[in-house]
Amino acid sequence: MPGLAALQARLAEFAAARRWQPFHTPKNLAVALSVEASELLEIFQWLTPEQSAAVMDDAASAHRVRDEVADVLAYLLQFCEVLGVDPLAALAAKIDRNELRFPRPEADGHSPG
Amino acid sequence: MPGLAALQARLAEFAAARRWQPFHTPKNLAVALSVEASELLEIFQWLTPEQSAAVMDDAASAHRVRDEVADVLAYLLQFCEVLGVDPLAALAAKIDRNELRFPRPEADGHSPG
Amino acid sequence: MPGLAALQARLAEFAAARRWQPFHTPKNLAVALSVEASELLEIFQWLTPEQSAAVMDDAASAHRVRDEVADVLAYLLQFCEVLGVDPLAALAAKIDRNELRFPRPEADGHSPG
Amino acid sequence: MPGLAALQARLAEFAAARRWQPFHTPKNLAVALSVEASELLEIFQWLTPEQSAAVMDDAASAHRVRDEVADVLAYLLQFCEVLGVDPLAALAAKIDRNELRFPRPEADGHSPG
Repeated sequence: MPGLAALQARLAEFAAARRWQPFHTPKNLAVALSVEASELLEIFQWLTPEQSAAVMDDAASAHRVRDEVADVLAYLLQFCEVLGVDPLAALAAKIDRNELRFPRPEADGHSPG
Repeated sequence: MPGLAALQARLAEFAAARRWQPFHTPKNLAVALSVEASELLEIFQWLTPEQSAAVMDDAASAHRVRDEVADVLAYLLQFCEVLGVDPLAALAAKIDRNELRFPRPEADGHSPG
Repeated sequence: MPGLAALQARLAEFAAARRWQPFHTPKNLAVALSVEASELLEIFQWLTPEQSAAVMDDAASAHRVRDEVADVLAYLLQFCEVLGVDPLAALAAKIDRNELRFPRPEADGHSPG
Repeated sequence: MPGLAALQARLAEFAAARRWQPFHTPKNLAVALSVEASELLEIFQWLTPEQSAAVMDDAASAHRVRDEVADVLAYLLQFCEVLGVDPLAALAAKIDRNELRFPRPEADGHSPG
């Protein structure tokens, strides 16, 4: 399986070959990312929490989920490419900050009450 | 730098230690992903295309961009985790489909006109 | 209570007095509308369906809901203003189309079974 | 032309006749509103600011814009209906607050410079 960087390079080459770069401003890619995230959300729009947990049991909706996940990741990688953002480094740094912001609760035996 | 799978495991461990799993239904994670993609988009809301291309020149907005990229990727990975979706495989398959859907234009010398 | 048209005029005057019109392209207003709709959604992000039905019982979250509803409506009206779209006529026409698309089920006495 | 309240009543009757109320939790309607706002935004995704200003010149895209405006307004009204929010009162109150938050600039003759 190709890694994230290989897929990001493949997306950049794909867009360049089709001369899509003028459309790929950071603003337009942020719009596209948001639109694709909404298309993923649309699948769950009227589902109960229980139904949403079973969405991969149906082949057609499983395909749709994978397809929208791919679109979200594709636009996220292209957005990062044009702005020179490293998404893995950004996420690692964010988890570090969240470890401080939401301290790990103590083990059960030590919890208050 | 840790890879995507290592970050995904770290996020899962983080949520489990805080007992957040009951909140992490696929539907809720799809909502959260969409909300974070909108927060990234909000940065570009009133910018011209030219201003949007320079967004990393300002340290504060560069930090905000990286922070929102991290949030989008975090919820995408957690969404994929709870549904058993492989985001890299999904994206590779989607690029394959797009290669057929948007054929590569011929080289300049052969282009019509 | 002022009607929709009076509020739309007040919003247009408000933006003109602050010279915000150059920012109010249809594209930017569509982005702003989407961002505000996400901020409304964020309130419900981690709530169960039952909790979401009780959101107005808490004064702070009720205020937040009304505030985000106002923002969504404000950008929708400003979007319609700059493009010359009549939102009430658009909605009336859409309901007409939906009456054909989703026919009214028969009264109980006639329903199958 | 029917007013906002008449359209809101018509939407409520429409949903009741089709027994859609169980799906119309505030959370689901907030999701649907956000999804429709994104569908409106999608129309402008790759357009320049100038192209976005001309979107009503093409009959097909003008129809699409009106259709998505109707969907956004429909879900906003249904959301307000189930939570007992008055959207016009919410917007009037918000404009009042914004008049304080963004004071009206002085007339030209008095502006600095």
